[in-house]
Amino acid sequence: MVEALAKKAKEASVVLRSSGVNIRNAALVKIAQAIISSSNEIISANRSDLEAARQKGLKESFIERLTLNEDRVKAMADGVLAVANLDDPIGQVISMWTRPNGLRIGQKRVPIGVIGVIFESRPNVTADAAALCIKSGNTCVLRGGSDAINSNKAIVDVMRRAVEEAGLPKDCVCLVEDTSRETAAKMMRLNGLIDVLIPRGGAGLINAVVSQASVPVIQTGAGNCHVYVDGEADMDMAVKIAVSAKVSRPSVCNSAETLLVDSAIADKFLPVCAKELICKGVELRGCERARKIVPEMKVADDEDFYTEYNALIYSVKVVDGIDEAMAHIEKYSTHHSEAIITESYFKAERFLNEVDSAAVYVNASTRFTDGGEFGFGAEIGISNQKLHVRGPIGLKELTTVKYVIYGAGQIR
Amino acid sequence: MVEALAKKAKEASVVLRSSGVNIRNAALVKIAQAIISSSNEIISANRSDLEAARQKGLKESFIERLTLNEDRVKAMADGVLAVANLDDPIGQVISMWTRPNGLRIGQKRVPIGVIGVIFESRPNVTADAAALCIKSGNTCVLRGGSDAINSNKAIVDVMRRAVEEAGLPKDCVCLVEDTSRETAAKMMRLNGLIDVLIPRGGAGLINAVVSQASVPVIQTGAGNCHVYVDGEADMDMAVKIAVSAKVSRPSVCNSAETLLVDSAIADKFLPVCAKELICKGVELRGCERARKIVPEMKVADDEDFYTEYNALIYSVKVVDGIDEAMAHIEKYSTHHSEAIITESYFKAERFLNEVDSAAVYVNASTRFTDGGEFGFGAEIGISNQKLHVRGPIGLKELTTVKYVIYGAGQIR
Repeated sequence: MVEALAKKAKEASVVLRSSGVNIRNAALVKIAQAIISSSNEIISANRSDLEAARQKGLKESFIERLTLNEDRVKAMADGVLAVANLDDPIGQVISMWTRPNGLRIGQKRVPIGVIGVIFESRPNVTADAAALCIKSGNTCVLRGGSDAINSNKAIVDVMRRAVEEAGLPKDCVCLVEDTSRETAAKMMRLNGLIDVLIPRGGAGLINAVVSQASVPVIQTGAGNCHVYVDGEADMDMAVKIAVSAKVSRPSVCNSAETLLVDSAIADKFLPVCAKELICKGVELRGCERARKIVPEMKVADDEDFYTEYNALIYSVKVVDGIDEAMAHIEKYSTHHSEAIITESYFKAERFLNEVDSAAVYVNASTRFTDGGEFGFGAEIGISNQKLHVRGPIGLKELTTVKYVIYGAGQIR
Repeated sequence: MVEALAKKAKEASVVLRSSGVNIRNAALVKIAQAIISSSNEIISANRSDLEAARQKGLKESFIERLTLNEDRVKAMADGVLAVANLDDPIGQVISMWTRPNGLRIGQKRVPIGVIGVIFESRPNVTADAAALCIKSGNTCVLRGGSDAINSNKAIVDVMRRAVEEAGLPKDCVCLVEDTSRETAAKMMRLNGLIDVLIPRGGAGLINAVVSQASVPVIQTGAGNCHVYVDGEADMDMAVKIAVSAKVSRPSVCNSAETLLVDSAIADKFLPVCAKELICKGVELRGCERARKIVPEMKVADDEDFYTEYNALIYSVKVVDGIDEAMAHIEKYSTHHSEAIITESYFKAERFLNEVDSAAVYVNASTRFTDGGEFGFGAEIGISNQKLHVRGPIGLKELTTVKYVIYGAGQIR
């Protein structure tokens, strides 16, 4: 079943990959219009998902993320339109050179083909992921969480009709309707039909995909990010960044989880910063040295320093300078985003050069690791792996390259 | 055991990734010198592998590939020196831009970290793979075939001593001495310790790695390549390319396996080309239409068109024009390398744009898909996947990127 679906997506990809950007954009505009005009249909399908979720006694926060209303449907359509307005990543010849034998070799950006997206019960991801795939010339096989199945069916149905009206195969967008784990596992091993898998969701989902998939995966996810306040930091800036990196949105992967403070500044910095954090409702868990300075802190154990809280909890550690800070990051970090706050040129350069994370900041919050903030316009997640893409996954990262070679009869 | 080994490689990678190119090159020069001066030691270790292989009754071709002699050891050292002379891929800032909020964001090329290489009993791969990894700032965990274990131990031992003499940790080069399948399987799942796995070898090895690994894999391998002779081809050029693409080295992945001939030219082209191929010892297997023109051909069935012969066998199919040729390639190809021979501008452009393979040629042999021929200096294989790298895997492809971000107190 899922194999047959992926086959259809593969066939559609042959058409989509050769289509111009005008038709891809037209499809996105039609999708946005159709989402608005089918708002009632989508919301009513969502209502049955919500009822089922309530009957199952699912958590309020879960139900909140599952809920669609007119505003959210509108936001979904706006998101699709925003993707239509982004630059086309396809067709760019990145470089071209001529070999001594006269062969002219060019490297050209092309769609990947079929992208599988496995995500949780957040129906807004459905339209979002499909829009990014279509824009980048890829067809998609979407597998959302079982609790959003009715919403997803309605949204995908609307999108498929719109895509067809725009003159593209409706199988550019395919939904896996059987949301069993067995089918998801099968989907992860459809080498040759699905070119890339992108899991979007929590650590459990991502680990399951990484460990089971034989199709190449772009791993998104975990962010155990650090802010290191150096002894030569501007105090006000350090407090501002340390606080904002945690409290501005604690639930996301680019928020900071551990605050490392140089012992040279800890006595001055920690009382001020802790006061502000506690006043914003943050629970602090400190090492022994930090707790000597701010006794209100709870005890942080080794496990704390490995933890991505995704909540208003901050672990704090006093370190003796940049070397201990970088060694701590090397050991505990998920290598997503780290920041140093310093006025020292040489320490800034060392931190930028030696810390091995997707994004390394000097004097700025880790919260900027985001496709929008980087200027990519949109993203499908933040890659935490080193292959293919590291950091925000924008349209360009949903492409691959091929070599186009112009000869005049050359043989070897 | 293999986990402890990978941990050592990971620790060494922290040192290696921050080392300058001078020390990396010095290590390579020392390795080359040490290989030469330890020539006897390596050859004598190889001799015990050869004896064991003969006692096991392994094939002559296998033993041939396993054999090291003075010339081959010299070639190994020369290969390492050649890598030392290549440009350093590390540290390049690929692009840098400034956001409206003043953040300056740069994308910088950095080493991947730890690269696992799983390969068959070809001891020359050992030095070659280690050299490419060191040059690109990566440490490596090498797992070669069991029949070359004594050779590999000797080579790695020599390399580790040389690396240490150059002032780098000897664990920059690690060898998995337990060559059991269980240990290989464990190695494939060391996420967090090994960053990327590269299998080098036949289809069986590659499929095993792809299906078992949870560590990201760069898939190399299968090449079912096509030459399409269009109705508007220059006859002489077409014969020259069609013949050379098969006979110049039939055992490699970039050699052609299927010859597609436009029915408009088949009557003229096939008798001439077939004569030359047969005279060079090539067995032809044709479709019905091809066999009407050249009755000497055997019958090609559907399976033939899926087969990478790696031998002096060529399947031949007569097609009605470029559309049928491209549809055949879409269905049967492994999407490695394909060529069109034509004088038509529009058909050349269509083929380049619409065929979805790693390398697409106009009027040249598929045999040029090769790191050396592309000008990369060296390669560790040809990637057949769409993630990270497609086509030859050179030094640049053994790197990843990180974002370096210069702020002035920005928060969100």
